[in-house]
Amino acid sequence: MNKFEKAQQILQEINGDGWLIVCNEDNDIHSRYLLGVASHALHAIFIAVDGNHRVLPVVMEANMVRNSLKNKRVNAEVIPFNSMKEFADNLKLLINKPKIALDFGENIFEDTTTSYADYIPVGTHLALQKMAPNTDFISAAPIIYALRSVKSTEELKDLRNVCKATIEILKTVPDFAKKDMTEKEVMAKLEYEYAKVGKPAFPAIVGTGEHSADPHHNTSNKKIKPGPLLIDTGLQIDDMCSDITWTYWVEGNPSEEFIDAYNALYQAKEVANTYYTDGTSSRVPSIKCREYLAEKGFDHEKLFFHGLGHALGFEAHDVGPRISRAAPGNTPLKENMVYTNEPGLYWIGKWGIRLEDDVIVGKEKCEQVTSNPKDPIII
Amino acid sequence: MNKFEKAQQILQEINGDGWLIVCNEDNDIHSRYLLGVASHALHAIFIAVDGNHRVLPVVMEANMVRNSLKNKRVNAEVIPFNSMKEFADNLKLLINKPKIALDFGENIFEDTTTSYADYIPVGTHLALQKMAPNTDFISAAPIIYALRSVKSTEELKDLRNVCKATIEILKTVPDFAKKDMTEKEVMAKLEYEYAKVGKPAFPAIVGTGEHSADPHHNTSNKKIKPGPLLIDTGLQIDDMCSDITWTYWVEGNPSEEFIDAYNALYQAKEVANTYYTDGTSSRVPSIKCREYLAEKGFDHEKLFFHGLGHALGFEAHDVGPRISRAAPGNTPLKENMVYTNEPGLYWIGKWGIRLEDDVIVGKEKCEQVTSNPKDPIII
Repeated sequence: MNKFEKAQQILQEINGDGWLIVCNEDNDIHSRYLLGVASHALHAIFIAVDGNHRVLPVVMEANMVRNSLKNKRVNAEVIPFNSMKEFADNLKLLINKPKIALDFGENIFEDTTTSYADYIPVGTHLALQKMAPNTDFISAAPIIYALRSVKSTEELKDLRNVCKATIEILKTVPDFAKKDMTEKEVMAKLEYEYAKVGKPAFPAIVGTGEHSADPHHNTSNKKIKPGPLLIDTGLQIDDMCSDITWTYWVEGNPSEEFIDAYNALYQAKEVANTYYTDGTSSRVPSIKCREYLAEKGFDHEKLFFHGLGHALGFEAHDVGPRISRAAPGNTPLKENMVYTNEPGLYWIGKWGIRLEDDVIVGKEKCEQVTSNPKDPIII
Repeated sequence: MNKFEKAQQILQEINGDGWLIVCNEDNDIHSRYLLGVASHALHAIFIAVDGNHRVLPVVMEANMVRNSLKNKRVNAEVIPFNSMKEFADNLKLLINKPKIALDFGENIFEDTTTSYADYIPVGTHLALQKMAPNTDFISAAPIIYALRSVKSTEELKDLRNVCKATIEILKTVPDFAKKDMTEKEVMAKLEYEYAKVGKPAFPAIVGTGEHSADPHHNTSNKKIKPGPLLIDTGLQIDDMCSDITWTYWVEGNPSEEFIDAYNALYQAKEVANTYYTDGTSSRVPSIKCREYLAEKGFDHEKLFFHGLGHALGFEAHDVGPRISRAAPGNTPLKENMVYTNEPGLYWIGKWGIRLEDDVIVGKEKCEQVTSNPKDPIII
């Protein structure tokens, strides 16, 4: 079953007439998710409960979209437009139906947020409401959740493949990363290797010294100096992303503090792993991980100031229950959800370590699809 | 004057109390535009008409945001949050004011669209309305237009610099691009060079053979074959992007059809250039370019199926009047607006050529800051 057919099935379950994606300048990831190609100009995708799917691309992208749908064996009519008026007229014909799902989230600043569905911008929504005043526009969050949270066999195959490729590239870091290279040069080389087989899932974080203590550091022109070097990076091949963090030590022997923190994080990650299982509350892995760090004498409340991980899939930050001690409710993890497991310890202004691996939730036991080195690699 | 101060000045003119940007997973480009750093997690930026600017980042990004604002000499209070509730409470204190500008567009499917401002998603907007029921939320389009359409001296300096760097890299293509390399390998090498000095402004389009006829082709694993090779690529350094298309010929001598089309496009581009001047309607360059192509016997209605260009700046597709014969009204170009000039001719399923240069609109005469080779380069 292709993604259009799966979405059609979910539409039947929620009594929707269609799922409409309006995308411009890549502002809704579900366009590439469904089309299998990045369409950059304004376009619309309409998945109909009756199977009469439509794609409305601009003329200059119509040939590319048609070819991609053919490759994906999707049966959808492609209706190109030449002018804004033509686009609006074609769209109007599709959406004057009782109930249409759009990509917007609900309860955005609350614990029950469905922000993973929050894409359509306000102005676009207003224009659609004006175009179809009698249509009940509902949130597409249930469709997106059902399509993306639990991964298919095909997606898990893509995941194992992309994780393997990433590890092979990460292993070569000590061959090229040297003291006095800039962070950006290391990133460039990594992403050059990625580009040959896929593309970066997100801009790599390369942090030397105190930069390793900023979990979302923007890779800079700073030269690599002796001490911790944190690399957080992911690759995308086909429909899946990897997301891995390794923390290296540059020059000489790692300090005792570094080794202690590294070992504690490695073990804390192992502890958490045992709770990436079907039916376990998504809070538990984080709680157990933090308990272990506390046992080892680390002030995790102060030093580990982010969630344990996040869902991983078509996007590096994918759809699924939050995996954090602060996650709302007691949402259970499900078999074949995919998550990162990434505890970290950070001394702001000094240095930090994060060890991140990717994990498939299992019935009894998880499958760890990447593996941080047990001992820090010295460059 | 920094960007916060400029925006504050525009707020005074439109009687707004503040400009609020709520950004999550990089879904509003104005966050990086203002902060000077990419903050990936949920955060808010509030530019206040009274100068009491605020940034609300998540704890894990607070240090990074503070450092970047300091480097940009922006005076804004940074208030980190630990939980969704804390974020919402802090936000509420800021926005309960009479008139707050948000990034949404108006008249989206009409000729008068301000889609360049259409960022805030529906669910986020609903949550803000609930949080501040008496606030009049207005579109930030006038602020964004005033900040971004006409470029500052500093931005033009960045533009000249990034264009020079891109050309230097593009010139090396014949040194490494060979028949039987894949399109992706060429892209990887190009972007490797970019990553050392900046980052790709958008994913490079490398199209061999019939792929050169898809203007927004997604670079593939196809091997480069003899004939046309189209490369559309851009680099970003500091606050400005380049966007350039060169069409090469691979192996042997270019066909007569190729040379004819190349020459006609080169001249058509020169013709269009003379109309990138202050006060000229943004329709005129395109009309003149097409007239020239018609004179040379090309059926441009069929073969040139996109606009002549687009505004260029902080983003590859930037803010400014549309430069197309189909542009609404008779909006004049203004001195120091920056545009691409990119006529193309495409024979779908066969091959295509596009020549694209970047141009600063001048008082009497434009400044072309990139330059396609007059004769096709043979690889």
